[in-house]
Amino acid sequence: MYIESLEKLINSFRRLPGVGYKTAQRYAYSILNGTLENAKEFSNNIMEAKTKIKFCKECGNFSETEVCENCIKKNKDVICVVKEPKDVVAMEKVKTFNGVFHVLHGTISPLENRGPNDIRIKELLERVKAYGTKEVIMATNPDVEGDATAMYISKLLEPLGVKVTRLAQGVSMGSELEYADEVTLTRALESRVKI
Amino acid sequence: MYIESLEKLINSFRRLPGVGYKTAQRYAYSILNGTLENAKEFSNNIMEAKTKIKFCKECGNFSETEVCENCIKKNKDVICVVKEPKDVVAMEKVKTFNGVFHVLHGTISPLENRGPNDIRIKELLERVKAYGTKEVIMATNPDVEGDATAMYISKLLEPLGVKVTRLAQGVSMGSELEYADEVTLTRALESRVKI
Repeated sequence: MYIESLEKLINSFRRLPGVGYKTAQRYAYSILNGTLENAKEFSNNIMEAKTKIKFCKECGNFSETEVCENCIKKNKDVICVVKEPKDVVAMEKVKTFNGVFHVLHGTISPLENRGPNDIRIKELLERVKAYGTKEVIMATNPDVEGDATAMYISKLLEPLGVKVTRLAQGVSMGSELEYADEVTLTRALESRVKI
Repeated sequence: MYIESLEKLINSFRRLPGVGYKTAQRYAYSILNGTLENAKEFSNNIMEAKTKIKFCKECGNFSETEVCENCIKKNKDVICVVKEPKDVVAMEKVKTFNGVFHVLHGTISPLENRGPNDIRIKELLERVKAYGTKEVIMATNPDVEGDATAMYISKLLEPLGVKVTRLAQGVSMGSELEYADEVTLTRALESRVKI
């Protein structure tokens, strides 16, 4: 019963993460109800972003240039290692951090068939050597895979004489102890600091 | 800190209904992580849908042709009046209905400054006269505005000698009485049918 071009647009929206048929339909209708300029802009922005944005050959984050601004401007004495580009966005909120980033593009996950050679570990070691980096901060997610990956990488970095640290784990600001899980509380207690 | 073309794509996604910054970012990243073909297809589908799809000059529903398939093929003795194109999709699920539709593109809403002349009422009256339609089914939403609009239109149709009906209101299939609201239960009771 459907109109072909509408059906195709709905299917495109359905490919976005977490979008089902109803939501895709709603998005498609909003395009049809919007202005032609908006649709043109949307359409162009998709192609512009997709064609212009590559991975920075140093840190692996998204970049329009071969080497991203961060890698050019920031302090290479400290490298903050994260799993994905979006984690860079999160860490950039910390204004006191002035080092560069390194995006692994995944964590080691035997369950998903991802070994150490499938993520950007080799590139990290090369950067540490080339820069003479003093500290590597492992900022992978505080979950089993993130912890295992951080541990694995730290073993490889040890012989290079670089200091390897891990983001502290503990209770989040503004949270309530009542709802904190056991593991978080255990780690917060173990890593308690003198006031 | 952001990449311009990425920021622009995120902003485009944010214009979709109900999409905030985090979701828009997730959508944009999925485009960047996807294939170039997918991005191209998405970009083209937006422009194709936007340029090809117009409103059917008869029923007002989305259509790639001047008059939609429904209006050409279906029985014009019965017109089902709905608020929006997506309501046509909903009503089309009812396989026993074989009539044509009429999309009002809104309901009368003094609060939102929409009067009878802002929705497609005049066009409905013209169609009823031209077709010699026997029945008009008011399928606007069962809310205050939908009811008021249905009532208003039925008064205008009365002099034309056409039968005007309204979708029955009552308890939904599969729902639990316990959670049904007062108005729904009152209407279900008033319209009770003999078994």
